[in-house]
Amino acid sequence: MNERDPLFVDIETSMGRYVEELCQFLRISGVSARKDCGEEMECLVRWLLNQLIPLGFQGEICKTEGYPILLARHNGNPEAPTLLIYGHYDVQPEEPLEEWITPPFEPDVRDGAIYARGSNDDKGQLYTYIKAMESYERVRGALGLNVIFLAEGEEEVGSKNLFRFLQERAEDLKSDIFLMSDSSMVSKDLPAITCGFRGVAAMELTIRTMRQDLHSGLFGGIGLNAAQVLAELLAKLKNAEGQITLPDFYKPVLPLTKKEREELALVPYDEVETAKTLGMNRLPGETGYTAMERKSARPTLDINGIKSGFTGQGSKMVIPAEASAKLSARLVPNQCPEVVVEQLRAFVAANIPAGVKWNIDLQFGSTPVLVEMDDLNVQLAAEAIKEGFGTAPALIRSGGTVHIISKIKDTLQVPSILILGWGRPENGSHSPNECFPICDFHKAIRSLCVLFDSLERRKVKL
Amino acid sequence: MNERDPLFVDIETSMGRYVEELCQFLRISGVSARKDCGEEMECLVRWLLNQLIPLGFQGEICKTEGYPILLARHNGNPEAPTLLIYGHYDVQPEEPLEEWITPPFEPDVRDGAIYARGSNDDKGQLYTYIKAMESYERVRGALGLNVIFLAEGEEEVGSKNLFRFLQERAEDLKSDIFLMSDSSMVSKDLPAITCGFRGVAAMELTIRTMRQDLHSGLFGGIGLNAAQVLAELLAKLKNAEGQITLPDFYKPVLPLTKKEREELALVPYDEVETAKTLGMNRLPGETGYTAMERKSARPTLDINGIKSGFTGQGSKMVIPAEASAKLSARLVPNQCPEVVVEQLRAFVAANIPAGVKWNIDLQFGSTPVLVEMDDLNVQLAAEAIKEGFGTAPALIRSGGTVHIISKIKDTLQVPSILILGWGRPENGSHSPNECFPICDFHKAIRSLCVLFDSLERRKVKL
Repeated sequence: MNERDPLFVDIETSMGRYVEELCQFLRISGVSARKDCGEEMECLVRWLLNQLIPLGFQGEICKTEGYPILLARHNGNPEAPTLLIYGHYDVQPEEPLEEWITPPFEPDVRDGAIYARGSNDDKGQLYTYIKAMESYERVRGALGLNVIFLAEGEEEVGSKNLFRFLQERAEDLKSDIFLMSDSSMVSKDLPAITCGFRGVAAMELTIRTMRQDLHSGLFGGIGLNAAQVLAELLAKLKNAEGQITLPDFYKPVLPLTKKEREELALVPYDEVETAKTLGMNRLPGETGYTAMERKSARPTLDINGIKSGFTGQGSKMVIPAEASAKLSARLVPNQCPEVVVEQLRAFVAANIPAGVKWNIDLQFGSTPVLVEMDDLNVQLAAEAIKEGFGTAPALIRSGGTVHIISKIKDTLQVPSILILGWGRPENGSHSPNECFPICDFHKAIRSLCVLFDSLERRKVKL
Repeated sequence: MNERDPLFVDIETSMGRYVEELCQFLRISGVSARKDCGEEMECLVRWLLNQLIPLGFQGEICKTEGYPILLARHNGNPEAPTLLIYGHYDVQPEEPLEEWITPPFEPDVRDGAIYARGSNDDKGQLYTYIKAMESYERVRGALGLNVIFLAEGEEEVGSKNLFRFLQERAEDLKSDIFLMSDSSMVSKDLPAITCGFRGVAAMELTIRTMRQDLHSGLFGGIGLNAAQVLAELLAKLKNAEGQITLPDFYKPVLPLTKKEREELALVPYDEVETAKTLGMNRLPGETGYTAMERKSARPTLDINGIKSGFTGQGSKMVIPAEASAKLSARLVPNQCPEVVVEQLRAFVAANIPAGVKWNIDLQFGSTPVLVEMDDLNVQLAAEAIKEGFGTAPALIRSGGTVHIISKIKDTLQVPSILILGWGRPENGSHSPNECFPICDFHKAIRSLCVLFDSLERRKVKL
């Protein structure tokens, strides 16, 4: 799109007002961790709906057992694809308050950025969609795409009510492209499309070797030490190559494609500097893969915690009868949490001394998400971001797990997923002095407008 | 000694009074865990001194920073050996009170036993020495041995003040034979002389692999997991033979002598039944040694506790940067706690990944104690017990650590040590309904009288 395109001009001239309006949005706090925010949440969701109505949306505020969900719909063209835009209007608690330079719910514009709780996560990023639609409609006339706008108020506390809502309202949420901006750019100079999130299997292993703890003097030499048994089990979880030894763990893993490896190799990442910053001699891990691959596109198995025997001050000389470990595997396509927990069970059964009682629970599972990098919509979004930001985005995979995306994918079967990160890593989500640079707010709106243009031009349902 | 010996007859006819007097002793509680027992403790120590004065003792009540120490001396014959009799007049707390059939400080004689807190540990066992001396003097005339009687009121809280006292008064405590009865028989039918106690090195290992805990999604695949590093270290502590792999760990260990192995083999011990009772398939441990040898006469290294990362309810998917383990080695002659901690340091240095920070502290150390089973005094004591009980005692080694004996040995260098257990394992030391069977009280007094006779007959300083 030409820089003199009236759409870009409109956005530029509207930015002052857009910032003002975002500040209004940010002034209504909405900390979902608190149970008594009903009025605020109602206010937030109404404010959003009032923004959407002038854009031709029809909406409803859906009550849940927690805070309400906004579901609004714009019918642009029955022949065009339907976009499902998701975001959240709740925010993290603002503590520690004393570390904020300006109050968290009194947005302050300084040094080219808006400082407020929620400016980056996720009110600011979500608001880019509304303002892009506004400019688009003003300049181009009605938006010739169908849009479902879905905003929840409990993302920061686990989205439990949204998951039920997805199932109950699956029919109303049927869509072709899922769009979400609650993620990060690679750096301030490099926007990103996240083409994969790892899944997770969070498990707990408990073992009992004897009826009870024993005196390490009177029974030392004949007791079966649960901490020792646990240590020996855990030590076998990885081999000398850093590979995970659970049976068939890698069997379902889709190999990285040449394109994926090339894209990941393009992301600037200084392994030596990172190791130094994190306080390690070098970044350890599975041989044969780069650090970027290992941390985002390869599966892992980490011990999250271990506990056995006496761990207080001083010494208590006991042979522990019980020990436990919390483990989490980060999963990549096509691994599945329920299968991984069975693999851990098989591993323990094969490696634990006879007679030891043990149990493994799956505490939390989430399936991995992979977006094909050569999905046409990913290509269109990449081109749009290139126009919007002036820099082509990196196509990355995130090592983390965004349970909402797994749920959307599993429940709604949306064919195309676009995770567009407008936030810089240093914007301070969840931290004091959270901010959202106005230039990124601006570039994101531009990018979305270009994307709308391309999608409208395609005018074919996928 | 003939059963009709007037000494045995005197003991038998005096038993009713001896039981009465022991009950007086038991009525004065003396729970050293409580800080406000000064009057009771004073009362107890005076009561003991008043028992000793008629037997020709001169005594002093020595103030300490805690509860007083009784030091009394009887000079029987400058040519004869000097006995140092040690015991404690303090007791464990009586809780849980509701589980006592009769109140803990109102001694009740039933089913042939005295039920009261302290009846077994240690007032009853200690009192055998006083009553043996009383009968002895009444029947044989003055006791032709020198006796130092040492009783403390803080054994149940760690004997800290006694240890200082041992150093300050070493000259006054110079003796040839140390006698103590605060231990166990093998079973109700089998008395015991304990010829060894293991020492201990209680250590804490802490490691730090990174500057801080990391998110297991965003950093999984490149983080150095402290729990994993710890598990791998601990798994290497023992080899497949159950041997401890610290460098030179076994080097100073005195091999078990033929006689020791024979004596230990005589102690009835059902490995299968014990494993079942403790809830194990079998008793694990070092190959080449019996369970009795492993639990009493071989060194051990047990993990007492491990801790790393998140161990609360639910899951927190973190890569821990810190991990710690508490370890205790039970030591046998001629191992030394200070050397073992250095061996652990060498082991960790050799096995931990480069760049990991670590620290090892020795939290508590106590040297092992070994009494030669063919020490003439052990033989005399064994013969005396055989006469007193009608059964020859087992010569055993205890796997536990009695720090006071290590301290006595290290500080006073007493050449001969006699640990004579008058308590049955089931007497319930530290538990509700603690008791001391009157027949054992009786047999112990008989045994001591026979021992006094033999020692007097030797009439040679060692």
